[in-house]
Amino acid sequence: MGIHIARFEQESMVKWGLVHNRNLHAVPGVFDSLAAFLASGKDLAFNLDTGGDSVPVDSVRLLNPVTAPCNVICQGLNYDDHRAETGSITIGERAPFNLVFMKASSSLSGPRDDVVRPKGVTLLDYELELGLVIGAEITSSTEITDANIFDYVAGVVISNDVSARDVQIPQGQWFKGKSYRTFCPVGPYLYLFDGEDIGQLLNIDIQLEVNGEIRQKANTGQLLYGPSETLSELSGLMDLHPGDLVQTGTPGGVAVKAPSAHIQRIARLLFSEAKLMKIFVKKQLQNPNFLKDGDLMKLTMRSPDGSIDLGVMKTRIVPETSGDKHEIQ
Amino acid sequence: MGIHIARFEQESMVKWGLVHNRNLHAVPGVFDSLAAFLASGKDLAFNLDTGGDSVPVDSVRLLNPVTAPCNVICQGLNYDDHRAETGSITIGERAPFNLVFMKASSSLSGPRDDVVRPKGVTLLDYELELGLVIGAEITSSTEITDANIFDYVAGVVISNDVSARDVQIPQGQWFKGKSYRTFCPVGPYLYLFDGEDIGQLLNIDIQLEVNGEIRQKANTGQLLYGPSETLSELSGLMDLHPGDLVQTGTPGGVAVKAPSAHIQRIARLLFSEAKLMKIFVKKQLQNPNFLKDGDLMKLTMRSPDGSIDLGVMKTRIVPETSGDKHEIQ
Repeated sequence: MGIHIARFEQESMVKWGLVHNRNLHAVPGVFDSLAAFLASGKDLAFNLDTGGDSVPVDSVRLLNPVTAPCNVICQGLNYDDHRAETGSITIGERAPFNLVFMKASSSLSGPRDDVVRPKGVTLLDYELELGLVIGAEITSSTEITDANIFDYVAGVVISNDVSARDVQIPQGQWFKGKSYRTFCPVGPYLYLFDGEDIGQLLNIDIQLEVNGEIRQKANTGQLLYGPSETLSELSGLMDLHPGDLVQTGTPGGVAVKAPSAHIQRIARLLFSEAKLMKIFVKKQLQNPNFLKDGDLMKLTMRSPDGSIDLGVMKTRIVPETSGDKHEIQ
Repeated sequence: MGIHIARFEQESMVKWGLVHNRNLHAVPGVFDSLAAFLASGKDLAFNLDTGGDSVPVDSVRLLNPVTAPCNVICQGLNYDDHRAETGSITIGERAPFNLVFMKASSSLSGPRDDVVRPKGVTLLDYELELGLVIGAEITSSTEITDANIFDYVAGVVISNDVSARDVQIPQGQWFKGKSYRTFCPVGPYLYLFDGEDIGQLLNIDIQLEVNGEIRQKANTGQLLYGPSETLSELSGLMDLHPGDLVQTGTPGGVAVKAPSAHIQRIARLLFSEAKLMKIFVKKQLQNPNFLKDGDLMKLTMRSPDGSIDLGVMKTRIVPETSGDKHEIQ
């Protein structure tokens, strides 16, 4: 049975706390990064006496439990219904490859921080994604299976892969459109595994609302490229370190909608790429589902039996010009 | 007038040295990363007495002066002749956007280390690129101009953006095909600027040979999106830190050749994306310019007056199965 951890600010100090009955029990020590917490704070947290001092979760500022700098690796097109809405594919098939890219880790922000819409960005979108937190050094090709995955994955968090579609799609490479500062809110709770099996990781209900309307609703059992297979492949490609984040892809329900593959092929015959992109952006501007200033996103992730509950992420869209960041309670 | 720095291994110790007349003068102190060297070793290096002890450059193992972890940011399609050979465009125009993506920093390797061809990769390619080394914290949108750029750029290095085209191109996102371990050799010398003007940064002759045949030859004055404009844009997107690397894009002459935009449009009408990619890979396999096991790449960068000379990078292709890494002298 695992534990829930939050990183928070109290009296201008950054602390890490064990979450118990909506109270936070501070873990003794100073941990400057998630990597430092996993190395020196995690065992303390597992053994913390919940009879001692605590503060209510609602009385403090909750911070992102994943900290920069780190690797933020993202999977794309990893749920069937999202593949369909992007016009990529035939339902019932997964892509012939595991689509992987990176976000800049300076995009990480807290579960109550505002998401800042950069000047000029009009097609701002959300992407609800289960985040895997790496717990071990992975520096060579490694066979990661459903049986040994918790040797490599320390825990899970809620994450939102915020995306400026008017930058991401016309520019082809997704890095820029997804890397703006505040485009990767994570938290509030990091669930640290202890003795779970893969079935529990692959049975988390995930949901995203905008202004109270449910836009995305899925279960992590629907992932096309699962965590074990994905981490095995990544291990053959690159080094991963404790505290790195892997965003596992988003289910259907994002704002952007692409025309069918058939329409795309005909359009490509008629128009240049540049003209096609102008048509795409103009068409999308009529779509009311893109995020507007003031919109409130609410993300939750919870296993059906309640044993894993990653809390509630609530972030609001503000324009870049609005000055200092505000907090949402 | 700047200085040339090398990171090297001598008697199992990693050292940083000032390069002077093909000798290395060790900078006193231990610097675990390029960031640490820039913070505490750089000023010592500028003031080092070259009358003291030294070792010949050829007597030590030269290491990559840029160290992981760091951000490795890459520009794409940033020379006119490379844009043309990729079938992207009309000559004489730059892309309507600055194409940016990331490589995993675990791809960094030394200027004499082997480049390991991953199992199954057949379309292995080279990309000669001037590397900018960041010298300051950049954490908010900043106007970086040709006048103040050396407040933000500490120096330059030779880099090779090695690319597995059979992974990169069919998978669309370029991260995986360019992130394998050893796919980012840098060095041997880091040139640290001191009192230069932008004209010197934009007048470096760059060249890449494979087995003695010149494949790429250009001058950094031909960059389409220059360093000042690029760093200004990046500053509005993400944080950059001392020791980060920005690869500025490759000139014409890489192995891969794309069909013209016209042929691509017709082909897209006739075939599915999957079929097109099969045709692409099959066609490219007939191209003798892709790198084969045993091939030796030699990269040089030098300003016409010799004031900046980044040394000679020599790396050889070996298959993944060949066991331990070998060194080339």
